[in-house]
Amino acid sequence: MSKTMIHLESDYNNGVHEAVLRHFLDTNDERTQSYGDDRFSEQARALIREACEAPDAQIWFLAGGTQTNATIIDCVLQPYEGVLCAETAHINVHEAGAVEFTGHKVIALPAHEGKLDLVELQTWLKAYFADETAEHMVRPGMVYITFPTELGTLYTAEELTVLHDICQEYGLLLYVDGARLAYGLAASTDVTLPLLAQLADIFYIGGTKCGAFCGEAVVFPKGNAPAHMLSRIKRHGALLAKSRVVGVQFEALFSKVEGNPLYLQIGSQAVMLAMRLRSIFVDCLGYPPFIDSPTNQQFYVIPNAALERLRQFIGFEVWCPVDDTHTACRFVTSWATTEEEVEEIRKM
Amino acid sequence: MSKTMIHLESDYNNGVHEAVLRHFLDTNDERTQSYGDDRFSEQARALIREACEAPDAQIWFLAGGTQTNATIIDCVLQPYEGVLCAETAHINVHEAGAVEFTGHKVIALPAHEGKLDLVELQTWLKAYFADETAEHMVRPGMVYITFPTELGTLYTAEELTVLHDICQEYGLLLYVDGARLAYGLAASTDVTLPLLAQLADIFYIGGTKCGAFCGEAVVFPKGNAPAHMLSRIKRHGALLAKSRVVGVQFEALFSKVEGNPLYLQIGSQAVMLAMRLRSIFVDCLGYPPFIDSPTNQQFYVIPNAALERLRQFIGFEVWCPVDDTHTACRFVTSWATTEEEVEEIRKM
Amino acid sequence: MSKTMIHLESDYNNGVHEAVLRHFLDTNDERTQSYGDDRFSEQARALIREACEAPDAQIWFLAGGTQTNATIIDCVLQPYEGVLCAETAHINVHEAGAVEFTGHKVIALPAHEGKLDLVELQTWLKAYFADETAEHMVRPGMVYITFPTELGTLYTAEELTVLHDICQEYGLLLYVDGARLAYGLAASTDVTLPLLAQLADIFYIGGTKCGAFCGEAVVFPKGNAPAHMLSRIKRHGALLAKSRVVGVQFEALFSKVEGNPLYLQIGSQAVMLAMRLRSIFVDCLGYPPFIDSPTNQQFYVIPNAALERLRQFIGFEVWCPVDDTHTACRFVTSWATTEEEVEEIRKM
Amino acid sequence: MSKTMIHLESDYNNGVHEAVLRHFLDTNDERTQSYGDDRFSEQARALIREACEAPDAQIWFLAGGTQTNATIIDCVLQPYEGVLCAETAHINVHEAGAVEFTGHKVIALPAHEGKLDLVELQTWLKAYFADETAEHMVRPGMVYITFPTELGTLYTAEELTVLHDICQEYGLLLYVDGARLAYGLAASTDVTLPLLAQLADIFYIGGTKCGAFCGEAVVFPKGNAPAHMLSRIKRHGALLAKSRVVGVQFEALFSKVEGNPLYLQIGSQAVMLAMRLRSIFVDCLGYPPFIDSPTNQQFYVIPNAALERLRQFIGFEVWCPVDDTHTACRFVTSWATTEEEVEEIRKM
Repeated sequence: MSKTMIHLESDYNNGVHEAVLRHFLDTNDERTQSYGDDRFSEQARALIREACEAPDAQIWFLAGGTQTNATIIDCVLQPYEGVLCAETAHINVHEAGAVEFTGHKVIALPAHEGKLDLVELQTWLKAYFADETAEHMVRPGMVYITFPTELGTLYTAEELTVLHDICQEYGLLLYVDGARLAYGLAASTDVTLPLLAQLADIFYIGGTKCGAFCGEAVVFPKGNAPAHMLSRIKRHGALLAKSRVVGVQFEALFSKVEGNPLYLQIGSQAVMLAMRLRSIFVDCLGYPPFIDSPTNQQFYVIPNAALERLRQFIGFEVWCPVDDTHTACRFVTSWATTEEEVEEIRKM
Repeated sequence: MSKTMIHLESDYNNGVHEAVLRHFLDTNDERTQSYGDDRFSEQARALIREACEAPDAQIWFLAGGTQTNATIIDCVLQPYEGVLCAETAHINVHEAGAVEFTGHKVIALPAHEGKLDLVELQTWLKAYFADETAEHMVRPGMVYITFPTELGTLYTAEELTVLHDICQEYGLLLYVDGARLAYGLAASTDVTLPLLAQLADIFYIGGTKCGAFCGEAVVFPKGNAPAHMLSRIKRHGALLAKSRVVGVQFEALFSKVEGNPLYLQIGSQAVMLAMRLRSIFVDCLGYPPFIDSPTNQQFYVIPNAALERLRQFIGFEVWCPVDDTHTACRFVTSWATTEEEVEEIRKM
Repeated sequence: MSKTMIHLESDYNNGVHEAVLRHFLDTNDERTQSYGDDRFSEQARALIREACEAPDAQIWFLAGGTQTNATIIDCVLQPYEGVLCAETAHINVHEAGAVEFTGHKVIALPAHEGKLDLVELQTWLKAYFADETAEHMVRPGMVYITFPTELGTLYTAEELTVLHDICQEYGLLLYVDGARLAYGLAASTDVTLPLLAQLADIFYIGGTKCGAFCGEAVVFPKGNAPAHMLSRIKRHGALLAKSRVVGVQFEALFSKVEGNPLYLQIGSQAVMLAMRLRSIFVDCLGYPPFIDSPTNQQFYVIPNAALERLRQFIGFEVWCPVDDTHTACRFVTSWATTEEEVEEIRKM
Repeated sequence: MSKTMIHLESDYNNGVHEAVLRHFLDTNDERTQSYGDDRFSEQARALIREACEAPDAQIWFLAGGTQTNATIIDCVLQPYEGVLCAETAHINVHEAGAVEFTGHKVIALPAHEGKLDLVELQTWLKAYFADETAEHMVRPGMVYITFPTELGTLYTAEELTVLHDICQEYGLLLYVDGARLAYGLAASTDVTLPLLAQLADIFYIGGTKCGAFCGEAVVFPKGNAPAHMLSRIKRHGALLAKSRVVGVQFEALFSKVEGNPLYLQIGSQAVMLAMRLRSIFVDCLGYPPFIDSPTNQQFYVIPNAALERLRQFIGFEVWCPVDDTHTACRFVTSWATTEEEVEEIRKM
C-alpha cells in the first residue's frame, strides 16, 4: 500500500497498540502454564472482572470473532435451539455459515440500521410460543446482538434493558458480540461494561479490532458458563496451547491508564477521530451520512464523480450504490488512526 | 513458577523466538490487507515454498494444532470418510473429539512407540476393501501420522515412501501433523521438507511449539487444496482477520540464517540439547530411556525415590508408572531451552 | 376420533391405499435381499424410471420427508454451500432445523403464496456473485422448491423451465420436494413426471402423504447421484434394513391402472374432491378462498361464528387469523377422502 | 431367490409376522393423529410399559436401528461426551459412522465374543478419570452394549447388574441396543424386560429383526427422557409423520398370546429352532461352533469342501476364514423360520 495513503478500510489493517507490543517484549522470557492457565491470562481476567464490576465472571480467551461466535453459541444452546438476530448480523451474513456448521439455525428478523426492533422481536416470540406446531420448528434459545452493530449503530441502555427483560420472559439467553466493543462503549452515553455485565448473559470484548493482534475475551458475568468449557472449546478447535499470546494482550489492554482501562481510551480516541472525520465529510465536503453512526465506522454518501479522487488518498470500502450518481462508502477509524491522518484529509 | 526452575514440561511454556519478536517490532506500523492477503503472509508463503522446493504449494496459516487437524481433515475428506491413525495419535487422544465434531470417524490402529506398523496398515486396508459390507463401514480416506510422533519417534524416509505408496494404492490421502516438525527434521537423518512435500498430500509446519506464539502453516505441496478453502476455513471459525499475526511469525521463522531457514536451526539447537540431556540422564544418572526418542521429547524411567528431588529443580511431566518403584517421565526441550539450563542439570 | 367426523386435518391421518395393503399381503411370504436390493425395490425403481421416461435415473427410497430433505441436501451440497428457498418452505419452517443439523444454511427468500419469485431469485444471485465478500458468505449450492408448495400452489412448466435455466446459469442444483407430488401432478396442466425429470437435478416422489405408510422415492433423473450413496444415506441413519417395506409400497403405487401409474390416479381423485369441496365452501357457503390453491390443500376464510359448528363435523386445521371476525382454515383431501364424505359436507 | 432355498442369511430377509399383517388389515380404515400421537402408538406404549413393569416409561418409536442408535445417543449425551462400547459393537463397525456424524466419538474397548469385559471397562474408567489431561480427551458419557451382541452372545443378569453399578459410579448412562432383543430374552435364563427396565437408562426393543417391517421402540424406563424429544428426534430426520405404521406393528407385537406378549413368543420360537439347527450342525454334521451363541445367530466352522454343497440349499453368510481349510459361517433363524425348514436341513 502507498505510504501516503490514509487507511480507513477497516480496523484490522494494523499491528498492535504500542502498549501491547511493549508487554510482549517485557514478558517474553517468562515460562508459563498453558491452555488458559498462564499467569497473564489470569491477570487479564482479574482486570476484566474489575472493569465489569463482575467478581464472579468467568472469562475465556479465544482467537477470533467468528470462532468465538460459533463456539460460544454452540456451547450454550441446546442442540435443538436456534439464535435470533437481525438479518444484517455478522453471524447471519459474514461468517460463512459457521453457526450452522455447529448445527444451529440462525433465525433472522428484519434489521433497522443494523438493530433489532424490540416490538417485532416480542411479536415474533409471542407467535412462536403460541404456535401449535412450535415443536416442529427451531426453538429460539438466544438473542444475538452486536454492539456496536455492523452499521456502527448502538442500542441504548434502555433498549438493552428491555431486550434483557424480553429474554428473561421467554427464557432466552442474551449474547452481545462486542467485536468493536471499545468503540461502542466510547460512543455510548449510557452503556458501560458493568451494565453489559448486568444485562447480558454472555458478551465478548473484542481484541482483534481494538488494539490486539488477535483474541476476544468471552465474559459469563454471573459465573454462568456451562460445565466442561475447556473440553467444549477444545473440540471446536478454539483452545490455544500457548494461551499467553492472548493473555498478554488483554493484560495490556485492561491495564489502567489515568485510572481507566487502556481499552476504553483506545475506543475514545478512535471515536473522537471518527467524529472529526464526520465534520470534514458532512460539514466541509457536504457528503451526507448514509447511516447515522456515532462509532468508528462511518458511512457517507459520496458523489461518484468524487470517488476516484478520494481513492488516491484514502483507503475505504464501497458499501453500496445509493442512486445513479452516488455511492455509500465506509470509512473506519481505529486505535491506529492518528490526528495527523485525519487533518490530512481535511486539507485534501 | 520459580525462577531457578528449569522448565522442561513442554515446548509451549515459553514466549517467542527473539527473531520473531524482533519482526513484530519492525513491522508493527505497517497497514496491511487481511484474511491471509497481508504481505507478511505472502512472503512467508514464498519462503516456505522455497524451503519445500514446492513452487506450486498452496499454504494456509491457522492458529493452533487441534484447529488445524480438525479443519483440514474435514476440508479434504468426503463426508463419509474417516481417518486412519495410530491409537496414540493426537487426534485420537488429546483433541477432545475435535475431528469427530466435524463428523468423521477416527479409526485407530495399534501404535508401536507412537508409529503405525505399515504391514498392519496394509493388512487392515486389504481387509476393509475386501469386506462385502464395506459400504456399511466408515471408508478410510486418509492416513494421519505425526512427525515426530507423540512419543518423539520418527518415521524414516523409507517408511514414509512405503506409506506414500500404500496411500496411493488405496486412494488415501497422506497427512502429516508437524506440530513439532522442526525437531523432527533436525533429528531425522533423511527426512527433509522437500521429501515431505513429495510424499505427503498435506502436511503442516508447526509454529506454536517451534518458536511462535501461535500459528501452523498447512502445505498442499502440489497445489492440491480443494476449492473455496477460504470459505471452508472460515466456517470452521479458523480464519484470522488480522492474518499478519501468523504471517509475521512465519516470515521470521523461514528467513535464512547462514543459508538455512531459522526454523531448521531452532530444531537443531533443541535436539542437540535433548541429546545432551539424554547423556546426563542415561550415562550420568543411570536412568534408562523409556522410549528411544531422537527428538526434543525425552522419556526416562526415574526411580520414584528420586522424583521429589528432581521436581525441585526441573519442571517435567509424569508420563505413566513403569513398576512399583519406577515412573516414566517426559522432559521436553525447545528453542527456548539454553545450554546453561542443561548444564545446570548436569551439576545437580 | 369420532366416527361421524370427516377428517380433513391432513393427508397423513390415514392408513394405506388398498392396493398397497393388498401388495403387502401378496408378498409377505417372500424372502428378499435387504438395504435396497430387494426385488420389490428394484421393480419399483423400474416402474418409476418408466413413468419418468428417465431410463438412467437412480432412485433411493427413504422413510420420511424431513429425513429425505436433510439427507439428500447434505449428500449433494458441498459442505460450505447453503440452500435457497422460499421463507415458507418446509425445510425453513417445519423441519426443526434438520438441514442446519447437517451443517448447511437455509437461505430464505421472500415467499409469494409459497413460491419463489424468479426475478427476486435472480437478483439475489446476481448480487451474491458480484459481492466482493462472497467467500465470507454461505455460497448458494441449490434451489429448493416444493411442488405443490406448503400453501397448495404450483409452479407452471414455464416457471420451472426458467428456474432450471437460472440454476444452470449460476451452477446451482434444482431440488424439488414432492411430498405431495401426486396432488401437484394431478392439478397441474403442464407439469409431468417426465418434465420434472428433465428440469430438476433431484426430486422426490412423496409416498407418506400419497397412499403409503411411509416412504419417499428420491430420483436422480440423469444418473447423477454422488458416489457412495449407500454409505452417505446410512450415516444419516436413513437406510432401511428391510427396504422392502418401502419397495412393496412404491411397486404398488406405480403399478398401472388403466394404463397409468396408480400414483397419478390417487392424486386425481383427491384433487377432484378438493375442487368439489371448493365449490361447496365458496359457492354454497360463501367462504372465500384464503389462497387460490388448485391442489388437495384448500384454505378458506371462515367467519369465526361458524367455526364451532364446522368443528363438530369436520376435522381441519386453523391456519391463521384473518381479521377480528374471520379465520383462515386448511382443509386437506387425500387418496383416502371419499365422495360420500364430501357430499356429507354439502348437506351440513 | 430360489424357492427351495432355506434362507438363514439374516433375520431381516422376510416380511412381517402374520399377527402384524392382520393388525394392518384390521386398522387400515381408521383415521388417526400423527407424529406419535396416534392411538396405536399410545396403545403400544401402554403394552410395553406393562411388559416392562415400568409405568413411568417414556417410549419413542423410530424407524430403524442405526437411526435409533445415532439419534438417541446424540439426544442424551452432552456434546463433548463419547460412548464406550466393545470394538465389535454395531455402532463402531456397521453404522457407516452415523454416531460420529452427530459429533460424538465412539470409544472402542476390546471385545470378548462381542462383549465388554467389565474389569477392563472399570480399569479404563479409573484411568480416564485419574488422568490429568482428561479434559483434553473425550469424556465418556455412556456405555453402549448390544443384547444379544453382534455375535449372538448374552450378558447375564449379574453382569448387567455390575455394569449398571459401574455406570452409576462413574456417572455414565447405560444404553442397551436391543435390535434382536426378542431372541436375547428368549435365550437368557435371567434377563427379562423388567430387569432391563431396572438396570438400563435407555434401551430399545427391536422390531425390524423381530417380526416387524420397520420400527424400534426406545424405552426411557424411569421417565428420564430429556426435554423436547419430539424436536430432537425431528431434527435427526427420525420423526415419522404417519407414526401409526410403527404403532400398529408394536401393538401387535406386544399383544398377549397365552398371557405373554407375542414378542417373547417370537423370540422363543426362533431360538428353539436355532438350538435344533445347532444340534444338526454340531452333533450330526460335526461342524463345531465358532462362537458359543445361545441365540438366533449361529456360527459354525465349516470345512471349505462342504461350502459349495451347503450353498445350494441354504442361504447363509460367510463370516471369516478360520484356517486354510475351514471357514466360519453365520446362520440366522428368525420368527419366519419354520420347523419344516430346519428339518429339511437335517435331511440334506
